[in-house]
Amino acid sequence: AMDFKLRAATKEDCKEISRMIKELAVFEEMSDQVKISHEDLERDGFCQNPFFECLVAEVPEERKSREGFTVVGYALYYYTYSTWKGPSAYLEDLYVMPEFRGKGIGRGLLCKVAEVIKKKGCVRLQLSVLDWNTSAQDFYISKGAQNLTVSEGWHAIRFEGQHLDNLAGEA
Amino acid sequence: AMDFKLRAATKEDCKEISRMIKELAVFEEMSDQVKISHEDLERDGFCQNPFFECLVAEVPEERKSREGFTVVGYALYYYTYSTWKGPSAYLEDLYVMPEFRGKGIGRGLLCKVAEVIKKKGCVRLQLSVLDWNTSAQDFYISKGAQNLTVSEGWHAIRFEGQHLDNLAGEA
Repeated sequence: AMDFKLRAATKEDCKEISRMIKELAVFEEMSDQVKISHEDLERDGFCQNPFFECLVAEVPEERKSREGFTVVGYALYYYTYSTWKGPSAYLEDLYVMPEFRGKGIGRGLLCKVAEVIKKKGCVRLQLSVLDWNTSAQDFYISKGAQNLTVSEGWHAIRFEGQHLDNLAGEA
Repeated sequence: AMDFKLRAATKEDCKEISRMIKELAVFEEMSDQVKISHEDLERDGFCQNPFFECLVAEVPEERKSREGFTVVGYALYYYTYSTWKGPSAYLEDLYVMPEFRGKGIGRGLLCKVAEVIKKKGCVRLQLSVLDWNTSAQDFYISKGAQNLTVSEGWHAIRFEGQHLDNLAGEA
């Protein structure tokens, strides 16, 4: 069995998390969209009321990646609220470096997030997947997840940039 | 012009918010799904690290609803995080009682939420709409929102109940 460790991220992991956020965006074919730095992650995730929590997967030094990395995966999540069911959580990113896939690290991160948020009283865990990413969809469905866009017809809507500024300006 | 006031909800508003959460669920044809009470809202939204924030719309006593209510709309939201753009927010519910629609209360609540979250440094506001609720979709799109499910193919995935317990149990 592959040996790896899952643990809560610390401020010192933010450079590695930032690197993997960019790797994930390349996979999602939207790498030009990443605007935040490791300094942003340090400030936003490790302050008094952090915007997110993060777990990382670490392998021993002797199993480091070809490029010398030992932090090889992460799960970044935050707390949300369902007005029907109560405290919930949202898994923003779940990522494992390609050369470390197929060893249970992704599954391990997902299960650990579920454990952590349940201890905080959460009754739901949600996330988003791209329609063409069928391997991710199959993975989540195999674990019992429901695709709400397909089953109930929920669509995601976003305001940003000038449009968000305009809304705020009308207040 | 209709006179109404928008203000941050207090613990004392939770009974009214709970009533409107049920009204919204009836509209969404999922009223059997509402499991939380006003006591839950009081505990989860008005504690040290609240799970959500809420604005309410209030009309003067002389314009109260047929059933005698003066709190006639609400917007419930919470803070999230984009690993590409940073601090963001999610509008869980936006609701105005049917007899008070068409008077700018919904627009007012949406704009006020945008103003509040921008002051907290948020760069995005997201929400979900049902595919058959074209009037809500048209409203958001007219204000410059993007439908991410249509434009980028994002689908919403949810774990809950026994499936979430199973994940946590495997950690």
